[in-house]
Amino acid sequence: MTAARTVIGILLFDGVEELDAVGPWEVFRTAEAARPDALHCFTVAETAAAVTCANGMRILADHDLAGAPAIDVIVVPGGEGTHGVIANPALLDWIRETAAACRWVTSVCTGARVLLAAGPARGKRITTYHSAIPELRATGEAAEVVDGERWVQDGNLVSAAGVSAGIDMALWLLGQLFDAAFAREIQHVIEYDPAPPYGAVA
Amino acid sequence: MTAARTVIGILLFDGVEELDAVGPWEVFRTAEAARPDALHCFTVAETAAAVTCANGMRILADHDLAGAPAIDVIVVPGGEGTHGVIANPALLDWIRETAAACRWVTSVCTGARVLLAAGPARGKRITTYHSAIPELRATGEAAEVVDGERWVQDGNLVSAAGVSAGIDMALWLLGQLFDAAFAREIQHVIEYDPAPPYGAVA
Repeated sequence: MTAARTVIGILLFDGVEELDAVGPWEVFRTAEAARPDALHCFTVAETAAAVTCANGMRILADHDLAGAPAIDVIVVPGGEGTHGVIANPALLDWIRETAAACRWVTSVCTGARVLLAAGPARGKRITTYHSAIPELRATGEAAEVVDGERWVQDGNLVSAAGVSAGIDMALWLLGQLFDAAFAREIQHVIEYDPAPPYGAVA
Repeated sequence: MTAARTVIGILLFDGVEELDAVGPWEVFRTAEAARPDALHCFTVAETAAAVTCANGMRILADHDLAGAPAIDVIVVPGGEGTHGVIANPALLDWIRETAAACRWVTSVCTGARVLLAAGPARGKRITTYHSAIPELRATGEAAEVVDGERWVQDGNLVSAAGVSAGIDMALWLLGQLFDAAFAREIQHVIEYDPAPPYGAVA
């Protein structure tokens, strides 16, 4: 008897911030290469057309919404394109319905804006991209919008701070799905021993 | 009178490691958004067809080799696909000729394997992905293959360690092209204040 694989779906959309999506992708797909029996990660977008990211990179998602396998962990990245996502009722419905069946519901950066609009982040303690904190606080929809944390967990809802924080959150989640030793093994494979050259951000 | 823009070209190829390329892309395109007069970054691949990366992401490059603008800073990412690159004489020729006209020649991860095969890294002090260090030392082509550094500069040749080290190298290079204050501004925009959840890699 084999335990079911954990299936991770990363949402892509026009205007998604590249590193928001590719940071967790690198972590989870590297983990999948090590444990293909236990983990599968794919990207999913509304249609099969290439997504044009916030900084202009064009990516072809693995699946469209209709063709995506069932998802256990959803990752909603941020980026300027989140404004388009929250104005798209069909996509918000898909996110709401998918998240309702998920073991973990996660966002990176302004992906939290989407999880508030779709519903799963309402009433939760969350974080988001630094410049979006006042906006998300002003909605009054979250229990609390935290500043200064790389990621925040509230039940099965995990929200990361901006852009590169998705790497930290993905590694943390890998430790929750498996154990810290496996997360550190993957951290080693991607040589994530960061050394910002001009020191920490003030 | 306006100083010419610095043009940064990131090479993509089948089997390129996603974060090797997208880390520097995120840094340089974010910088370009802040200083479009001073910086331009694009991706370039051998043909216009989608590149399938090492972990399966499919990316459409901005330019093919024939259509790419002149490059001041070349970024050669790594990944399993570097074995294909070094077996491709036409691509190696393009890299050699492009690098010869560059102000900075850079690699991430096993991109150093490509810069040795193409020529620019020969006789230089370099680094590479941790597991590739013995292989690149064994070639005898580099002056030294350094272990334990996030990036190594030797003249205009800058090589980064594995995968995520490209982010550190790109920020460092931004500080060299402009100044440390601008690099820290971009670091802040991408919220690169990393906090690996289970501590540093041993």
